[in-house]
Amino acid sequence: MSFVSTRADFSAESPMFALILSNSLVSTIEGVSGAGESPAKSLMVPPLDAELIINGEITSVDMTPNTPTGCPTPAVLTLAMMDLIGMKPLMIAAGLDHEVTVPHIQFGEKAGGDPREGRAVPNAKELFEKGRWLGEYLSQTHDLLVLGECLPGGTTTALCVLRALGYQAKVSSCLVDNPVCIKEKIAAEAVKKVQKAGVTDPLEIVSMVGDPMIPVAAGIAEGYRGKLFLAGGTQMLAAAAVIRALGNTVPDIVTTVYVYDDKTASFKETAAAVGADAYYVDPEFGSIGHDGLARYAEGEIKEGSGAGGAMFLASILGFPPEVIRNTIREQVIRYA
Amino acid sequence: MSFVSTRADFSAESPMFALILSNSLVSTIEGVSGAGESPAKSLMVPPLDAELIINGEITSVDMTPNTPTGCPTPAVLTLAMMDLIGMKPLMIAAGLDHEVTVPHIQFGEKAGGDPREGRAVPNAKELFEKGRWLGEYLSQTHDLLVLGECLPGGTTTALCVLRALGYQAKVSSCLVDNPVCIKEKIAAEAVKKVQKAGVTDPLEIVSMVGDPMIPVAAGIAEGYRGKLFLAGGTQMLAAAAVIRALGNTVPDIVTTVYVYDDKTASFKETAAAVGADAYYVDPEFGSIGHDGLARYAEGEIKEGSGAGGAMFLASILGFPPEVIRNTIREQVIRYA
Repeated sequence: MSFVSTRADFSAESPMFALILSNSLVSTIEGVSGAGESPAKSLMVPPLDAELIINGEITSVDMTPNTPTGCPTPAVLTLAMMDLIGMKPLMIAAGLDHEVTVPHIQFGEKAGGDPREGRAVPNAKELFEKGRWLGEYLSQTHDLLVLGECLPGGTTTALCVLRALGYQAKVSSCLVDNPVCIKEKIAAEAVKKVQKAGVTDPLEIVSMVGDPMIPVAAGIAEGYRGKLFLAGGTQMLAAAAVIRALGNTVPDIVTTVYVYDDKTASFKETAAAVGADAYYVDPEFGSIGHDGLARYAEGEIKEGSGAGGAMFLASILGFPPEVIRNTIREQVIRYA
Repeated sequence: MSFVSTRADFSAESPMFALILSNSLVSTIEGVSGAGESPAKSLMVPPLDAELIINGEITSVDMTPNTPTGCPTPAVLTLAMMDLIGMKPLMIAAGLDHEVTVPHIQFGEKAGGDPREGRAVPNAKELFEKGRWLGEYLSQTHDLLVLGECLPGGTTTALCVLRALGYQAKVSSCLVDNPVCIKEKIAAEAVKKVQKAGVTDPLEIVSMVGDPMIPVAAGIAEGYRGKLFLAGGTQMLAAAAVIRALGNTVPDIVTTVYVYDDKTASFKETAAAVGADAYYVDPEFGSIGHDGLARYAEGEIKEGSGAGGAMFLASILGFPPEVIRNTIREQVIRYA
């Protein structure tokens, strides 16, 4: 397989990489998410990922955003690509449980709640508006934007939103054994809640059963005028579905081959259903010479913190696959 | 007098306007600051100014950032200029007492303390480093940066820092009757504290007796590679003095003619002493046909929220003085 899925004839004079950092309490439900050292600590992953990407190391706490098995956080791949490109990326915080220690755009709002109960994202509309502002802001100088996300547990809220919008999607997982049953049960309850309330407005659906990342991504897509890539796995399909439902142009989506080919999910089919052109990057981590990264190829982690998009960006900026792979290997070894 | 002090042959392909929002508890000392509806409410001025500039109105609270006499906040001038230019500016929050409701870069940290007591800005070094990061970030796409500040009470902390650095500066005020005695008394105590501690390191001086805006401005100046203008009054002279003391290129400073010619201050002399080229804008508010703005010409407010720099930016981008004046008059009338 080639490094990038299809010939990507994109060029950029002034590209930017941005990462939406959010929390949903869904990640604290036992068994849902593999992010962070434990379900409770999963809430710390976005600020720690941001610290790693911006500062190159985590010094604020004695904790890592790695999985319990020691699999490296995908943020280290994003860091490696930013170093390679020589780019200072933009962190966007919205709905976080913990403070971000590095410079970031702050949208405020609380962490998203359990999608089965109450309104998960009461201020989805405000987050959307702030996203739109930022999209317009970034349009002033950036002709290409790769927009990633870091929201542990987000495939579950993505499933809730996709199903509530009528898509028969199956979502991916950062766990080798995708906890499909737990997710399906949560999504069924969430969809029931939406149907009972008779809600069809896309942002209102996000408000009821989504997470804070989705309205921010949808808002940025509405405001941004350059070429936009949503960088992530099945979570970004939910954002794309909301963008479509709002009547806006659906951005392209870029992910890793590990999500693209995930048989427990339906990435390609759902991307087609929401009308998104989808790209993948295949960094061949199985042969990269690092045990933790090799587990990516076995289905652990797979993607996150816009790592697929960051590699994709390096690729379209002209860096060859071997340079990208070497940079990642060196960064991961340095970091571990 | 001409609209801009000297022929300003600056050009920009991709300019940006940014505003540092900070607090110092010095503004809550009775008689020090004229910002906001009262000394206690002065702490609300930066978030309200940001809301006004980004959203075009204040809706989060039933409060204005205007003076007790109803003189319009200079943020309305900045808003008018951003509208005229068609620019989405960047708000930078550091050391604030209240949350900012609009999208902004967040540096965190607490409001600055009383410069007479303890360490006023314990994390000045961290704020400097975050500022440096942002300067480098903005260098990626902006060839010209106008950097303003909004920190009520800031002329007092500026006086403390300037004096501690050995400058015999006199600072301006947003009050018609500059409360020189109070400021001098506070500065004398602050200088004594610094001398007693034997501190000479510029960031350590800021940490002891300054405010959170100064290290952010100094950090941005260190990281930014394009043409930088510090937009503000005598507060920015303190930032410039710190920048010089750190061995970095001193940026140009741009202000309004009301600060430039303030006889209770020493703007020109101090700018010369710190090695900053200084520019002013003279919007002739005395004849603009609005009572509140006319008071600017009588020495109230004078400058703030980068208003002078915003008018300067509009001017170098080619907007004629009459268009700038008309836009301001209309915006102030609309806002009032």
